[in-house]
Amino acid sequence: MPGPKRSPRERIVYSCAQLVRAQGVTGTGLREVVAKAAAPRGSLQHYFPAGKDQLVREAIAWSGSFAAERVEQYFSEMRTPTPGGLFAAMAGQWQAEFAARGFAAGCPLVAAAADVAASDAALREAIRDAFDAWLAPVGDALRRMGVPPARARSLALVMISSLEGAIVLARTHEDLAPLATVVRELRPLLDGAAR
Amino acid sequence: MPGPKRSPRERIVYSCAQLVRAQGVTGTGLREVVAKAAAPRGSLQHYFPAGKDQLVREAIAWSGSFAAERVEQYFSEMRTPTPGGLFAAMAGQWQAEFAARGFAAGCPLVAAAADVAASDAALREAIRDAFDAWLAPVGDALRRMGVPPARARSLALVMISSLEGAIVLARTHEDLAPLATVVRELRPLLDGAAR
Repeated sequence: MPGPKRSPRERIVYSCAQLVRAQGVTGTGLREVVAKAAAPRGSLQHYFPAGKDQLVREAIAWSGSFAAERVEQYFSEMRTPTPGGLFAAMAGQWQAEFAARGFAAGCPLVAAAADVAASDAALREAIRDAFDAWLAPVGDALRRMGVPPARARSLALVMISSLEGAIVLARTHEDLAPLATVVRELRPLLDGAAR
Repeated sequence: MPGPKRSPRERIVYSCAQLVRAQGVTGTGLREVVAKAAAPRGSLQHYFPAGKDQLVREAIAWSGSFAAERVEQYFSEMRTPTPGGLFAAMAGQWQAEFAARGFAAGCPLVAAAADVAASDAALREAIRDAFDAWLAPVGDALRRMGVPPARARSLALVMISSLEGAIVLARTHEDLAPLATVVRELRPLLDGAAR
């Protein structure tokens, strides 16, 4: 996550993503984004001349890249890489965040899909591309752990689908258990697919 | 879904749920709800004196009941009930709707969780209760198909989590494949849990 040395532009994109996670795209105002980013007045128009749509698309793309980088990090850090271990690490990121910061913020891709995917084609495509950017390293990691290519893409989709649904259930129940449950139940399926 | 004989009140609740599915809670205006419901002016204040919050909570509760009834219907209609067959029927409802009507409308529970769960405790509790109302008949059906009680609740949560995530991916990709993928991959896991 951005530190104090990030540029105003980066801070604006990051702050937009964080606000979308808690209140959706429609509920996120540009003034609130600029205030949260501690960015100079006028910087929005300077960096994002096409307005909110451009900013939200960049926030979605940033979110997809962030998720993809975390997957690569988890994979590289596992001493004995297993598909189930990777899934546990992906869910563990959310368990740790909910435990530390509460349940206010969910996944920005799901939030944006919920309120604008139907009405804004360019934003829907940005969400699609962000999901694809996240699915790719999961599928790559599964293949490198011995999952046949034909199944790696399918199981990556199962992992991200069940993780996204469990995040929603964890938030609505203010309970970490849904994340632990999907990891426990899917681990044998995932590990069984690695040769 | 409500036919022409439904009362104005029922039509308002139904229309609210349908709009939330496509544009979220924040993006759903009361005038649009009344217009979509073809309800008399003033009926909103008459039936929902506490305003939009009350209406949205009822729309969420209606959605949970609707999902629960469909689960019971699928279970009762299966000639040879299997957990994987039930999951395929639940996903099949979405595949049929997306194929017939396009990808504009997703799950109202996910949509509401995305933009208001963090800021509105009463609505978050309504979403939680709606998910619980949906999880219960799935768990009951799994038990009646021979899944041990301790696992039935966990697998119901896996089914609904992965279905919700696959719905989001199907909408963002405008593609039915994510739904088929989670059904195909989870079927052996689900059927293997039934004794």
